[in-house]
Amino acid sequence: METSPAFREFACADCEETFDADEIELRCPACGGLLVARYDHDLRTEPTRPPLPLARERRHSLDEGETPATDCPTLADEIGADRLLLKDEGRNPTGAVTDRGLAVAVSAGAAVGADAVSLPTTGNGGQSAAAYAGRAGVTAHSYVPSRCPFVNKAMINVHGGEMNVVEGRYPDALAAYEDSDGARFPVGPSSPYRRAGVKRLGYELLTGPAPSAIVVPTGHGIVLAAIHTAIEELRETGALDVTPRLYAAQPAGCAPIVDACGTADAVAATEQPDTIVGPLEVPDPAVGSLAVAAVDETGGRGVAVSDSDALQAAVDAAGTAGVELSATGGVALAGARELAAEFEGETVALVNPVAGSKEDDLLRSHLMSQGI
Amino acid sequence: METSPAFREFACADCEETFDADEIELRCPACGGLLVARYDHDLRTEPTRPPLPLARERRHSLDEGETPATDCPTLADEIGADRLLLKDEGRNPTGAVTDRGLAVAVSAGAAVGADAVSLPTTGNGGQSAAAYAGRAGVTAHSYVPSRCPFVNKAMINVHGGEMNVVEGRYPDALAAYEDSDGARFPVGPSSPYRRAGVKRLGYELLTGPAPSAIVVPTGHGIVLAAIHTAIEELRETGALDVTPRLYAAQPAGCAPIVDACGTADAVAATEQPDTIVGPLEVPDPAVGSLAVAAVDETGGRGVAVSDSDALQAAVDAAGTAGVELSATGGVALAGARELAAEFEGETVALVNPVAGSKEDDLLRSHLMSQGI
Repeated sequence: METSPAFREFACADCEETFDADEIELRCPACGGLLVARYDHDLRTEPTRPPLPLARERRHSLDEGETPATDCPTLADEIGADRLLLKDEGRNPTGAVTDRGLAVAVSAGAAVGADAVSLPTTGNGGQSAAAYAGRAGVTAHSYVPSRCPFVNKAMINVHGGEMNVVEGRYPDALAAYEDSDGARFPVGPSSPYRRAGVKRLGYELLTGPAPSAIVVPTGHGIVLAAIHTAIEELRETGALDVTPRLYAAQPAGCAPIVDACGTADAVAATEQPDTIVGPLEVPDPAVGSLAVAAVDETGGRGVAVSDSDALQAAVDAAGTAGVELSATGGVALAGARELAAEFEGETVALVNPVAGSKEDDLLRSHLMSQGI
Repeated sequence: METSPAFREFACADCEETFDADEIELRCPACGGLLVARYDHDLRTEPTRPPLPLARERRHSLDEGETPATDCPTLADEIGADRLLLKDEGRNPTGAVTDRGLAVAVSAGAAVGADAVSLPTTGNGGQSAAAYAGRAGVTAHSYVPSRCPFVNKAMINVHGGEMNVVEGRYPDALAAYEDSDGARFPVGPSSPYRRAGVKRLGYELLTGPAPSAIVVPTGHGIVLAAIHTAIEELRETGALDVTPRLYAAQPAGCAPIVDACGTADAVAATEQPDTIVGPLEVPDPAVGSLAVAAVDETGGRGVAVSDSDALQAAVDAAGTAGVELSATGGVALAGARELAAEFEGETVALVNPVAGSKEDDLLRSHLMSQGI
């Protein structure tokens, strides 16, 4: 694979073995651990732009990223923060943060000559993969649970992606994916390329308004791990001299990362996951260990919120700040409300991972349950 | 109202009477004609940023605009253009170009002390109005036809907007609006503030990649009229020395602006409008005369396309370019295909007015009709 000038190697987070880009696809070939990309930061030409493994000429882009961080004064006042910024990842090409990661992961597959990429997904990742695969001229195979939202299934089809709808929930889709043709280039949530792509979200926040705390709705843990890497890289290049605290927010019905934060324990799978927030119903997170490290090493915390509080937070934000949080994004605001005492006088950023319009049915149902 | 330093007056496009901002709301108080804002361009501080009537401090923003113009080489090759740029207005705060105009119009209402704003809408304008009204602390009253998409109705509710669902189609919603309480500040499609807000779309295209042709899916004609004003202003300040040709693209089942382009006739209302593309089913456009002038005075044309061609265009774009055109946006690509002979070797921009995910059902149904 043609790599960028600054890319040095992939390293296993568990066994510390290192690999060239051509030697790896998804996980460590030696031990199955998670891989992280390493760079020679003195070879970087732009210290405030994130380095990527892949050479620029090999990247397929739909102009993802550069999403706004919108000031929400009414929400800041409510929780006693100085500023509250909504980083709206719904304003990516397919309306979700997954676009950032799949842009790089699908490009990596195309760069090594793969005809097809493949992933298990709660839905938005499948839509992103199908979009970038269309762009790159490869086929995307998505394994989605039957509970996946209509919008994701419809748009996977519209992009011409191959879709396997698996009866049940995400673990059922994952099992079907694991039984499938292993010859396709894997772009699932363990992919180091996906974290490399999402890392830019951290760069955008940290080289801009530089919040002192960031609250992230968390499923697999990709966004938290990626922002953590952005912090480390920016500190290494001297572009950042503070460390914002990272907070994992999860639905109480499926909070394995929150449960592990601040403990010495490994992430334990949730036995009976149950949340209306589909993108976050991930009982056994793919990069949970990295997400917990992101929270614990930056002095943050985990916070679990009820589905009802998440939905109400999204409705409140739409009403007083005008912003369109999805139910998934509502988990961040509900979490920030729980954590308000820690944010007094600070600049806090919330990540909205999915456009509100993509979860319109969940938000509308919440109003219905209140008789509206 | 507190106006911007460069704002001079509103002028009627018909009787040429001029007015202060405080003297007008929607249309010319003397003759009912359309109003246009005029500026002292030598008082503008930034010649490549669009002047607005309203003072900066009075504008409520959700960080609308600054949408990407994504290169689509496969689509350019297909129609023989040098470059094809997709200006994706689906990446606005509520997923539609209507955000740009309603940001300014709702702010104008709030600036004059209105408690409530009101509009008839095919749907997206109502969602935008509800979002900005929430932000500005006023109430938005939307009159939507029963055929309005679920996503618009749901999100109007989520923002806490007042919604009047009127049995029938857009003209029925318009009639109900016209029978309603006239004391609310009007932010409907005739509003000069809406065109002033959308104008920036033209500035972004013209001070950036500067296409030689722009194809615009057209309902009321706001976007065409606004880009035309951007051209005129930028030529006046010397920031632009060419005039891109503007093309109106409409569904064949409702093409009153297309029918009037290139003729000496006024826009005549379509008697039996019938298109699946709801945002463009506007039989009697609010700013049709300005839209026709935009096309005729720039050397462009009108083009009418079938619903089926529009839907297929959106599906093709998703498949080969990865971009998510809505059915509404598909009207632009279907139009560009018809017009290909005029675009040889040129840079062409297409406007996608609405996010693909917001019209997922239309796109999916089109696949269904093909047995997919």
